[in-house]
Amino acid sequence: MLQLYIGNKNYSSWSLRPWLVLRQLGIPFEEMKVRFDSFAPDSHFKQTMLGLTPTGKVPLLVDDGLAIWDTLAITEYLAERFPQAGVWPTPVADRARARSLCAEMHSGFTALRSHCPMNVEAHLPEVGARIWAEQAGVRDDVYRLIDMWGQQLSTHGGPLLFGNFCAADAFFAPVCLRLDRYALPLPQHIQPYVQRVLALPSVREWTRAALEEKDFREFEEPYRTASGMLAERSLPQP
Amino acid sequence: MLQLYIGNKNYSSWSLRPWLVLRQLGIPFEEMKVRFDSFAPDSHFKQTMLGLTPTGKVPLLVDDGLAIWDTLAITEYLAERFPQAGVWPTPVADRARARSLCAEMHSGFTALRSHCPMNVEAHLPEVGARIWAEQAGVRDDVYRLIDMWGQQLSTHGGPLLFGNFCAADAFFAPVCLRLDRYALPLPQHIQPYVQRVLALPSVREWTRAALEEKDFREFEEPYRTASGMLAERSLPQP
Repeated sequence: MLQLYIGNKNYSSWSLRPWLVLRQLGIPFEEMKVRFDSFAPDSHFKQTMLGLTPTGKVPLLVDDGLAIWDTLAITEYLAERFPQAGVWPTPVADRARARSLCAEMHSGFTALRSHCPMNVEAHLPEVGARIWAEQAGVRDDVYRLIDMWGQQLSTHGGPLLFGNFCAADAFFAPVCLRLDRYALPLPQHIQPYVQRVLALPSVREWTRAALEEKDFREFEEPYRTASGMLAERSLPQP
Repeated sequence: MLQLYIGNKNYSSWSLRPWLVLRQLGIPFEEMKVRFDSFAPDSHFKQTMLGLTPTGKVPLLVDDGLAIWDTLAITEYLAERFPQAGVWPTPVADRARARSLCAEMHSGFTALRSHCPMNVEAHLPEVGARIWAEQAGVRDDVYRLIDMWGQQLSTHGGPLLFGNFCAADAFFAPVCLRLDRYALPLPQHIQPYVQRVLALPSVREWTRAALEEKDFREFEEPYRTASGMLAERSLPQP
């Protein structure tokens, strides 16, 4: 049985991606959640993960003793191990494009990722409005998403980026959660894609579990305090 | 015929990676060099690349009209297109590990990449000594490389990370160039790997071409001035 090590579902956007690939495609696996107590070298989290992988990070896939780390490597492993599951689109050109988009996500969108960390239970439209007004890098990232998704949806006619679900939708699912929770402005032809991703059974299952965690981790919360109030001190400054 | 779009050979570390995969494995391709005049939206570089790919970046592989961007996606495309070429190691576990290492490189080693940008023609041991003394993040990145490479070399017995050349060596070749040019300290059991990578025929061919460019680009030069002197103003500060 495959084992997938993940972090807190409320916060760990990279954990979400391979979890969605597995769950949405119906590949059986055992979920191994390692709570984010802290990322200090002597934390339970780091000690646990460093016992399994030299990077000490989640996600990590373990298949019969073989440890595979990093979301992209896990995705390629699953595509080889389960060739009929539909991890990547079947046509060569679509598969190449899906990999280009996932690789772009893997190394890019740094402004959006740093200013709008994933936080499933939070609703931060006021924070999002300020970030949108002040952070040109975030706007550029969102404009690139609009362009990318718009082109994919018009090429394939939806409902998802390559028609049916594939790993590319999983890679952008945490982005859809960010766009929704920070209420960043999207044009009418893009908003339905975001809502379709949030309505996927696997995304709903993850979201429900994230809401049940109720495990406020201050080091993952630039905008809230433990009481759930906005932490004005740390709102992004001009 | 495949076309690979690349930037200046002296500076473009991401261009180097797929170029090495192609050249070292003997896959024919046409090299399309687009000079870094600047990265401004109206630059020749950006205008050229934005006409070919939405990211406007190199490297870009074009195969009969199909554009594939990002080094990892290009690598996977080549592995599928030329299954006998040896892009990835053959054993499943080695292939999974090689992908983990490449993905780790793709999204990580940010301190080393930002403080020690690739500069094939430069010899910067004094800069490297100061960076080594002052930047804990760079030291951590190098320690991780030493650990990673040491484990691979002891597992496979060399000469390269998985025995024979594969994409993982191409992904770390720009790192080998950095370690050499900035003269960062390496233990005796790791230094020979760096020298073996630098001595690969494909790396030597790229290096020769980089030296012939003589195309000083100030925006790629935090440590030198156009006259070739160290720019003391921009040496890293404590």
